[in-house]
Amino acid sequence: MRVMGVDPGLTRCGLSMVEASSGRKVVALDVDVVRTPANQPLPQRLLAISEVVEHWMDTHRPDVVAIERVFAQQNVSTVMGTAQAGGIVALSAAKRGIEVYFHTPSEVKAAVTGNGRADKSQVTAMITRILQLQTAPKPADAADALALAICHCWRAPMLARMAKAEAAAEEQRKAFAARMKAVAR
Amino acid sequence: MRVMGVDPGLTRCGLSMVEASSGRKVVALDVDVVRTPANQPLPQRLLAISEVVEHWMDTHRPDVVAIERVFAQQNVSTVMGTAQAGGIVALSAAKRGIEVYFHTPSEVKAAVTGNGRADKSQVTAMITRILQLQTAPKPADAADALALAICHCWRAPMLARMAKAEAAAEEQRKAFAARMKAVAR
Repeated sequence: MRVMGVDPGLTRCGLSMVEASSGRKVVALDVDVVRTPANQPLPQRLLAISEVVEHWMDTHRPDVVAIERVFAQQNVSTVMGTAQAGGIVALSAAKRGIEVYFHTPSEVKAAVTGNGRADKSQVTAMITRILQLQTAPKPADAADALALAICHCWRAPMLARMAKAEAAAEEQRKAFAARMKAVAR
Repeated sequence: MRVMGVDPGLTRCGLSMVEASSGRKVVALDVDVVRTPANQPLPQRLLAISEVVEHWMDTHRPDVVAIERVFAQQNVSTVMGTAQAGGIVALSAAKRGIEVYFHTPSEVKAAVTGNGRADKSQVTAMITRILQLQTAPKPADAADALALAICHCWRAPMLARMAKAEAAAEEQRKAFAARMKAVAR
């Protein structure tokens, strides 16, 4: 499974591409940070991000795109830029029929380090080890994009099991409701 | 000048197309509200909005796209959806080389009614009059998209004058700074 990880942002948008094989083995294929100047008009900034993202999708052909889920903790103008960059990545994936998943920062930290409240240096150290890199990935946006992709590789089997269990439970609920109806008659 | 007005939103995205001629005369050409169900995944919702917006741009060929500027007053999840829908419209315009302008809700109200704090019914009544419509536009998202386009048509000459005045002032500042340097030498 080939996974594209995205740490969305207008000023810096982290991109990564990793390949997951059997077990927990993950290999890094590519990493980049798209930067757009704050004094550029918004449409041009979004276009610049969109062009790099679409080029990545068309050349690396990921099976899945994993994007960081934005939350309200930060200040609103940052949240808006992050939401817009993430939205454009999600749109580019949808146009190509590529599946999109969102993971929260604490899900990413928990998947990579085993601790949902790990700090940046712990996450970076674990990524460097997991991917067997010679040097730690920099800047933070590049490290976060790699962490997101790894998180997805490792959570995907669990998410699939959860979806299957939920579908089975829904079937049982329906069957039981039908049974109740039959009994009441 | 042909202006596309957009009241961005995930659940309801208002679109309008108007043509401005000499003076303050404005004619409505088209209006629509794109609806996407809240239970659909985000990438599919953004794709649905993007497809309608791109179709409008390619068939109506607007000179300018005027989008409502999002602010932080609302709740954060609404702001994020609005920012994402607006971002996708801005991106579609940038891909086609169409100019994008953002106007705040109070700029729109002030332009259309003369009062930046006008309520929805006053705005709708003025739009109905300005566009000489037989019935008032509904729902609010359609009315807002029309108001945005009208606002842009009427503010555009002022914005152009302001940009020209700002450029002239910048020239004067530079010339004066050069003069100061020459005097100090």
